[in-house]
Amino acid sequence: MAEYSAPLRDMQFVIKELGGLDAIGMVPEWHEVTSDLVDALLEQAGKFATGVLSPLNWTGDRSGCRLEDDAVITPPGFQDAYRQFQAAGWPALSCDPEFGGQGLPHLVGHRVSEIWNGANMSFCLGPMLTSGAVNAVVRHGTEEQKRLVLPKLVSGEWMGTMNLTEPQAGSDLSAVRARATPVGDGRYRLQGTKIFITYGEHDWTPNIIHLVLARLPDAPEGVKGISLFLVPKFLVNADGSMGARNEVKCVSIEHKLGIHASPTCVMAYGDKEGAVGYLVGGENRGLEHMFTMMNLARLEVGLEGIALAERAYQKALSYARERVQGREIGARSGERVTIIHHPDVRRMLMTMKAQVEAMRALSTLASVALDLSHRHPDRAERMKQQGLLDLLTPVVKGWCTEQGIEVASLGVQVHGGMGFVEETGAAQYLRDARITTIYEGTTGIQAMDLIGRKVAAEKGMTARAVIAEMRAFDKELAGSSGHPALGEIRRALAEAVSALSDATDWVVETYPHNARAAAAGAVPYLKLWGVVAGGWQMARAALTAKTMLDGGAEDFDFYRAKIATARFYAEHILPHAHGFKSAVVNGSASVLALDEAQF
Amino acid sequence: MAEYSAPLRDMQFVIKELGGLDAIGMVPEWHEVTSDLVDALLEQAGKFATGVLSPLNWTGDRSGCRLEDDAVITPPGFQDAYRQFQAAGWPALSCDPEFGGQGLPHLVGHRVSEIWNGANMSFCLGPMLTSGAVNAVVRHGTEEQKRLVLPKLVSGEWMGTMNLTEPQAGSDLSAVRARATPVGDGRYRLQGTKIFITYGEHDWTPNIIHLVLARLPDAPEGVKGISLFLVPKFLVNADGSMGARNEVKCVSIEHKLGIHASPTCVMAYGDKEGAVGYLVGGENRGLEHMFTMMNLARLEVGLEGIALAERAYQKALSYARERVQGREIGARSGERVTIIHHPDVRRMLMTMKAQVEAMRALSTLASVALDLSHRHPDRAERMKQQGLLDLLTPVVKGWCTEQGIEVASLGVQVHGGMGFVEETGAAQYLRDARITTIYEGTTGIQAMDLIGRKVAAEKGMTARAVIAEMRAFDKELAGSSGHPALGEIRRALAEAVSALSDATDWVVETYPHNARAAAAGAVPYLKLWGVVAGGWQMARAALTAKTMLDGGAEDFDFYRAKIATARFYAEHILPHAHGFKSAVVNGSASVLALDEAQF
Repeated sequence: MAEYSAPLRDMQFVIKELGGLDAIGMVPEWHEVTSDLVDALLEQAGKFATGVLSPLNWTGDRSGCRLEDDAVITPPGFQDAYRQFQAAGWPALSCDPEFGGQGLPHLVGHRVSEIWNGANMSFCLGPMLTSGAVNAVVRHGTEEQKRLVLPKLVSGEWMGTMNLTEPQAGSDLSAVRARATPVGDGRYRLQGTKIFITYGEHDWTPNIIHLVLARLPDAPEGVKGISLFLVPKFLVNADGSMGARNEVKCVSIEHKLGIHASPTCVMAYGDKEGAVGYLVGGENRGLEHMFTMMNLARLEVGLEGIALAERAYQKALSYARERVQGREIGARSGERVTIIHHPDVRRMLMTMKAQVEAMRALSTLASVALDLSHRHPDRAERMKQQGLLDLLTPVVKGWCTEQGIEVASLGVQVHGGMGFVEETGAAQYLRDARITTIYEGTTGIQAMDLIGRKVAAEKGMTARAVIAEMRAFDKELAGSSGHPALGEIRRALAEAVSALSDATDWVVETYPHNARAAAAGAVPYLKLWGVVAGGWQMARAALTAKTMLDGGAEDFDFYRAKIATARFYAEHILPHAHGFKSAVVNGSASVLALDEAQF
Repeated sequence: MAEYSAPLRDMQFVIKELGGLDAIGMVPEWHEVTSDLVDALLEQAGKFATGVLSPLNWTGDRSGCRLEDDAVITPPGFQDAYRQFQAAGWPALSCDPEFGGQGLPHLVGHRVSEIWNGANMSFCLGPMLTSGAVNAVVRHGTEEQKRLVLPKLVSGEWMGTMNLTEPQAGSDLSAVRARATPVGDGRYRLQGTKIFITYGEHDWTPNIIHLVLARLPDAPEGVKGISLFLVPKFLVNADGSMGARNEVKCVSIEHKLGIHASPTCVMAYGDKEGAVGYLVGGENRGLEHMFTMMNLARLEVGLEGIALAERAYQKALSYARERVQGREIGARSGERVTIIHHPDVRRMLMTMKAQVEAMRALSTLASVALDLSHRHPDRAERMKQQGLLDLLTPVVKGWCTEQGIEVASLGVQVHGGMGFVEETGAAQYLRDARITTIYEGTTGIQAMDLIGRKVAAEKGMTARAVIAEMRAFDKELAGSSGHPALGEIRRALAEAVSALSDATDWVVETYPHNARAAAAGAVPYLKLWGVVAGGWQMARAALTAKTMLDGGAEDFDFYRAKIATARFYAEHILPHAHGFKSAVVNGSASVLALDEAQF
């Protein structure tokens, strides 16, 4: 099984050459985040990914997890890999230094996450959920809660989970029924069943800190009556040591299409007196608090899409370079060639490569927005970046995961019949990718968030500002429009930006008086954003590459490939903006035309 | 597990109301194929599918096949289901009456195949391959071969296989190495290994007739040196009874992403003296003979795409009607609703429905072309229909399977988290569908066939004739352009037909002097054909529906839904013609721009 190799060069490019590192240089705390530090970190992460995590990806898929009584046994090697991961200090990378974290910007941390996901997505779901729990406690926990659990969670000695949904609720968290009853000493007793709990139980760490949504007695109906609780598997004594076993256990694990090595648990809280829990943040404000974590998690899930696409690309490329089959077009005799010589195989590889690079550049833009929204010294700039982050979050989550599935599926196709044979490994990436458009909010939910809370709610302000930036960039491109590739890229981008602009006008106008019609086009609108914003970033990448080449840069293979890939994107992917726009602007009535009985 | 229900109404519509039954009425042998006969056959097939085949689909996926020594054990219930299938006479449906077949047109036979595939694709791969073997022997076998094996194969008492590829060959059959040595008595001894042999071994029938590609001694290199042999598992005595066990056996079966109930075998021929085989057709003409079977098989694989899409749609629809989650858009209180109320769920269901109906209508056009190309009394018409069939075969195979995957994936998405849980069953359709774009020629190979042998070779004659038919149909639509839906459909179709026409001109012009550039756009060109030809058929369906409604037809729910679905197709799917055209016409240079090292 070929091992994953971290795409260091392209990561360096998006971090440093597309402007991210300069941008976070505005933040005093990050003055020490130098180009050399970035290189060193990515390289170390890449080594660990290739050497330790990647070899377990396939074996973990084969073994899966098992439930023995209420204990979950993870696949051979995973526990040990986690010990090494923790010992190397990786869990603390982007955490607040106040609680033992290294405080690195997400600009770097997200790329490191991409590396973990590329190597072994099932593995890194555990640390990802833990990091969500850390964020919730940092932002909303009491001083006591922070003191008792944060050092252990940040160091990775313990892990954390997010317990949101229940069988009857699905994506509709207003339907959550788990109950929390105060017992008078500031503690609560929780009862209820939670499903789809990733790493709800496992054998990696002695304790697990669950963050759980539940209702207080007499809480209002709906989303305004949900509170957030911290429920440790083992209670935590005042000195931070582990106490009695709490009333929470895993009662079953799911048999899934993919991510077999990651346990997906049904968790039962309080089958006797109730599980002991501690209120995190305000009463009835649990969903609001959970959203802080969910938005960060959504960006991380977007990274999963990119990471699986990258790994599928690497595997397909390696196969295409080795597999000898057929001859060059038109040749009836002579040497047989590797399949990378066949134009359609190239088309598939270019599609994979172009999608991966566009997604990586776009998600990096979101990482920078996240960093600056927290730490930029200027408040107005923080708010501007928060607006951009809010807009980009559903796009990165929704689009990068949808494309992740498509790219992983192309990876199977490049392998031909061997792609369908499980031992080849290409099919696993497709199976793993298939969850990413579903959890942490389906693509449909991301799209509703985009059109409602992000675009219509502010009358398109941020969306139009970004579109204006794209148009301003057209002027930068104009200077290079004599260059054949850049001229073509400019033309295609201008057309696609117009489509995005028209669709945005339609959404802003339609949503307030007909939210249902706007919702009918929400996913095409989200894909339109992804396609066009990805094209914008690829155009920026191409211009940067041209500037580097004009300046005599040595790494000319990389820069030339970047320009050619951006051109491919402009010619093969950007023109689909037309189709998405049409679906948004013309297509809502037909979505809603049928009676339920007519289906 | 919800069972498959044959979509009888839409099948009746495409067979009867879109003109197929009238067209084959030109053929005297088929005067008895009446509307009532069609209804009765489809209904019977539907009952068998729902009652017998469909319940085994999920259990077969779970059990899979096992190899014990050289025997393959198929999942529980499959052997018995095959006995019932055979006893009911289904294998003989479209076979030549001269050999015991019922001689029904493919117009009906293909829809029955769609039903089998919808119910249980793994099951019906066995009969499908057998039917390929029957065709090969009917067309190219000696009288003796026909007498000895056809009655048994047509009745289904024995089954057949197609043995093409080998480990080093893949899609490149010119690389086949299996050897056949004449032994002087008209028989041959075969030696070699064949891979990916569907139902190469099983426990359904006492004998299996393998059709095998191999090289004669001193045969020329390449595709012109391959011959076709009939190799029975048990030799056949002169009286048709079974004789000695032949030297052919299954040495392993693949562990695959999907179609688990269908054994995919590695077959070893002649580990001692060589397996006894009989030459079918001319020496060194095996590939040519095999292509007769493969073209038929390609249409059948297209049906698999449609069938899985239909089943995925049925399952998603049933879930969307039952699953209660969330409230109507904008409502913060009140009753929770089933998810079919949510616009994005509707959009997904409409996408699935529109794709399925467009594919079914297009594949029916190909079925009629196949029927008329064989049996139309007028030779010129036979040739015209052959041209249409040749053009449509790669489109039906390539496009319907690509869309089948997309629709099956949407089916998972409609189920949310439950879609990722294997017990739900939605994921199986995606796993099963994933092979269809690979076997019987990948989408890339279909696309090369389309641009080369089908379009460029005749300078676009048939392609342009079909485009002219689409344009002529625009005039028919013009009469209804005041109708809001039909006006919109007309507008969208005209735009898409122009894109297809431009791309066709480009292919015809480019291929002769730069086949590589044309090949770079081959798959987008194939998809363009699928999207536009599907849109043409949906527009025909909408006009037919309007005519029926204007005439006071009773089934108005069906016809209104047909018009709304055609409109959805025109607004959401047809506009992507623009993107595909751009990829074909502008995008070839960027596909080929990188050096191998630059990837």
